Amino acid sequence: MSIYGLLAEDMAGDDAKKAKAKASGGGKKKEVKKETGLGLSFKKEENFGEWYSEVVVNAEMIEYYDISGCYILRPWTMSIWEIMQAFFDSEIKKMKIKNCYFPLFVSPGVLEKEKDHIEGFAPEVAWVTKSGKSDLEVPIAIRPTSETVMYPYYSKWIRGHRDLPLKLNQWCNVVRWEFSNPTPFIRSREFLWQEGHTAFATKEEADTEVLEILELYRRIYEEFLAVPVIKGKKSEMEKFAGGLYTTSVEAFIPNTGRGIQGATSHCLGQNFAKMFEINFENEKGEKSMVWQNSWAYSTRTIGVMVMVHGDDKGLVLPPKVASVQVIVIPVPYKDADTKGIFDACAATAETLCEAGIRAETDFRDNYSPGWKYSHWEMKGVPLRIEIGPKDLANNQVRAVRRDSGAKLDISRDSLVDQVKTMLDNIHQSLFDAATQKRDACVQVVKTWDEFKEALSQRKLILAPWCDEEEVELDVKARTKGEIGAAKTLCSPFDQPELPEGTKCFASGKPAKKWTYWGRSY
Amino acid sequence: MSIYGLLAEDMAGDDAKKAKAKASGGGKKKEVKKETGLGLSFKKEENFGEWYSEVVVNAEMIEYYDISGCYILRPWTMSIWEIMQAFFDSEIKKMKIKNCYFPLFVSPGVLEKEKDHIEGFAPEVAWVTKSGKSDLEVPIAIRPTSETVMYPYYSKWIRGHRDLPLKLNQWCNVVRWEFSNPTPFIRSREFLWQEGHTAFATKEEADTEVLEILELYRRIYEEFLAVPVIKGKKSEMEKFAGGLYTTSVEAFIPNTGRGIQGATSHCLGQNFAKMFEINFENEKGEKSMVWQNSWAYSTRTIGVMVMVHGDDKGLVLPPKVASVQVIVIPVPYKDADTKGIFDACAATAETLCEAGIRAETDFRDNYSPGWKYSHWEMKGVPLRIEIGPKDLANNQVRAVRRDSGAKLDISRDSLVDQVKTMLDNIHQSLFDAATQKRDACVQVVKTWDEFKEALSQRKLILAPWCDEEEVELDVKARTKGEIGAAKTLCSPFDQPELPEGTKCFASGKPAKKWTYWGRSY
Repeated sequence: MSIYGLLAEDMAGDDAKKAKAKASGGGKKKEVKKETGLGLSFKKEENFGEWYSEVVVNAEMIEYYDISGCYILRPWTMSIWEIMQAFFDSEIKKMKIKNCYFPLFVSPGVLEKEKDHIEGFAPEVAWVTKSGKSDLEVPIAIRPTSETVMYPYYSKWIRGHRDLPLKLNQWCNVVRWEFSNPTPFIRSREFLWQEGHTAFATKEEADTEVLEILELYRRIYEEFLAVPVIKGKKSEMEKFAGGLYTTSVEAFIPNTGRGIQGATSHCLGQNFAKMFEINFENEKGEKSMVWQNSWAYSTRTIGVMVMVHGDDKGLVLPPKVASVQVIVIPVPYKDADTKGIFDACAATAETLCEAGIRAETDFRDNYSPGWKYSHWEMKGVPLRIEIGPKDLANNQVRAVRRDSGAKLDISRDSLVDQVKTMLDNIHQSLFDAATQKRDACVQVVKTWDEFKEALSQRKLILAPWCDEEEVELDVKARTKGEIGAAKTLCSPFDQPELPEGTKCFASGKPAKKWTYWGRSY
Repeated sequence: MSIYGLLAEDMAGDDAKKAKAKASGGGKKKEVKKETGLGLSFKKEENFGEWYSEVVVNAEMIEYYDISGCYILRPWTMSIWEIMQAFFDSEIKKMKIKNCYFPLFVSPGVLEKEKDHIEGFAPEVAWVTKSGKSDLEVPIAIRPTSETVMYPYYSKWIRGHRDLPLKLNQWCNVVRWEFSNPTPFIRSREFLWQEGHTAFATKEEADTEVLEILELYRRIYEEFLAVPVIKGKKSEMEKFAGGLYTTSVEAFIPNTGRGIQGATSHCLGQNFAKMFEINFENEKGEKSMVWQNSWAYSTRTIGVMVMVHGDDKGLVLPPKVASVQVIVIPVPYKDADTKGIFDACAATAETLCEAGIRAETDFRDNYSPGWKYSHWEMKGVPLRIEIGPKDLANNQVRAVRRDSGAKLDISRDSLVDQVKTMLDNIHQSLFDAATQKRDACVQVVKTWDEFKEALSQRKLILAPWCDEEEVELDVKARTKGEIGAAKTLCSPFDQPELPEGTKCFASGKPAKKWTYWGRSY
């Protein structure tokens, strides 16, 4: 099972179409118009796929690359990634998880050791077969994930119960050469992620960690990206290839009516331990097998954030991850005290920076204030501060929220407090608005007819299910169509009451749990 | 020209020999003895290559991997890398250099665009030709460095003088499939580094930045790794393929008598700008070409540190980069107050941690104090604190320096101040000792005979040189031998006086500068 499931056909996928955005490499650059600050040509509601592609390029997050499915992550993207990374890295260090770095390359024998696992990844594996002009003796794979890269060494390092738990993480790139439509952040052939790989003496410890990590993923989405997610467990069909069970945080994109797996925390059970002989002597001197977890989140998080919050003016950044939280723009007027205005802007930005707020000024003299407003709106900066002659006279600044457009005049005496409050409010508003939109898409169904109707309306469907694999296969088969089949997204940990006698919406058998269904990315 | 020059044949290079260290993958683990804490079987002075391989494994920095030339970087290594990274990243951010991430893959046309450049790298490029079971239409290269990956986009992004300077950096992995003897950190087929790529309107700005970055590299070596380096300029033969000139920091390994390039800061001139058409309209409205730099340091830094400071007890970590700066070990005695001792150890570590010192306790009950001493000595922890019954009675701790073995009883009342002073002293002692050893190897020569004699004594040779490429080629040819030919290391910026009429040691022509020569890694 591919970790990323099926791609939405309604996404702009074909990189070839993006030729306009590609580097010319030749002398054509003068023909290409400067994109930023000129607004978007597609609307989010009308053509979501094109809108998305345009936003990530015009906000200077992504540059399309001359190899399909590979994207350049520009500084505006990397600063978001680094902020999330700093949070997650410090949290896992508190959990005594240590960073390491394993090689990019895997030898075929090791890669193929766990059968279910390799079946899940085999079609997407990129193979190095040459160096310079010479053929390699044996082709070498590029890691699509590192279970099989790492676990032979876990087998070596783990001898006794005192070597446990072994808790490692790495920040790295991985490669999955997928052929379905590539989409920036959401489905790329190379992406950045962290992958944690831990081994414990007992299942209880492994179970506990699975949920601790999942909670960190929830916090990344909800506390940093202001994106609401549902915590739950994947079905047997959708779980990680070779693992015991998979938990995930699931987001939802109302515009396309598709769920999207936000991050996964897997309990691998003892399956890999068996294949790779990861044994230890327990406290009683008996030979035991470890229990393992693996867990990962990737740059996909950033794509989800763009999809959820962006609007027809461009990107909308939640304040926590914005590398520029406040942009200060002078609004000079012909007879006004221009120097005074610029000085006030500089002082404002400095005051904010000293208070730990990421503020910058835009003093470029070749752009009008109006152009700058559009430019920084496109880039999604949460708060704009304008200072004109009147503001200067009144010892105030005008603050404009990116999310709502709301304007507020702030006295310079209470600048820091009010800006902090506004940034907090922006985060909360983004989260609330996203939750409201997501919740408006949730449809509880109990019958097949209700299910089909809700699916046609692109809903996030919550239905009682018998939890049988054949039934999920059957639902997939019966909903197969142009825009993709329905599948399970997760069974939420937060289960509504399931009255005795409730039947599965699809099979009519006794229902075992409520499960979210829908199309997905 | 390979960035890493020739490998020392006297290094332990053949990974096949390291089979003993490899993961068994099978059921053989019980036969492998636990390495750490058992001391080294090779001595630094007697068999440097084997000693090095043993230290990096036994100190738990490196694990040998089942693909030759690839190594697992264990947490003990990654924490060193992360400390250097935090420093360098914050310094370049102050210089307004921004992080980005470009793809791992390069298409052949782009890779081969700059002729001199690709000639330097072509034999080492790894090629992906298959995904799953399908052949790719066109083989795709894995970046050996990213000049050609990035510069087509610089051409796109840079239009006018206001787009300059463009200053980007990335932290990533690169692959150079070298066939000469691989060595952990020093020469690996995949390694981690940062690569900065900047473009300026003027040569002056580029020149200035080259030196600013070089100074940061000097600080990494001298202020973090306690390794003295020489700043200088590379010869035409040794400069970066396709660039204008290369500056470097050069370290020296007295045990092998080899120089080692520590990090490089290149001015690329306008050569890549010409090939990739990176033009801009200057302030007068004229079309101009940018001036570019690129600069990098890699995990090689860590290998240099190991080689310079390590001893027959194992690794010696400079305090600045040690993830554990102080290890606190209880030394209970049969009739003594064991609980009191353990409490004192815990309190000591806590006090140190609160003061920002990275301290840990070793309370394992299955190892003796003596075993623990050896273990943490092997891992290179700068300072050991022992607390036994007498120490407890006297409200003191015993501190033992890893570098010198010197012991000092410290009152617990002045613990933090004294430990800080000791850590500072350890850094300074390591740096001074390394400088003294390096300087003792420097030999000033003026004639060919003196040069040959110094080379046979494995010296770091400073000689007046005519700065002609044929002469360097000639010296290489004339010194070719079992342990490698001599070449230029750098012309130091800090030039001794060169009296009028001084002749080149090799050609007899008028000398233009003093240059360091020697064998190198």
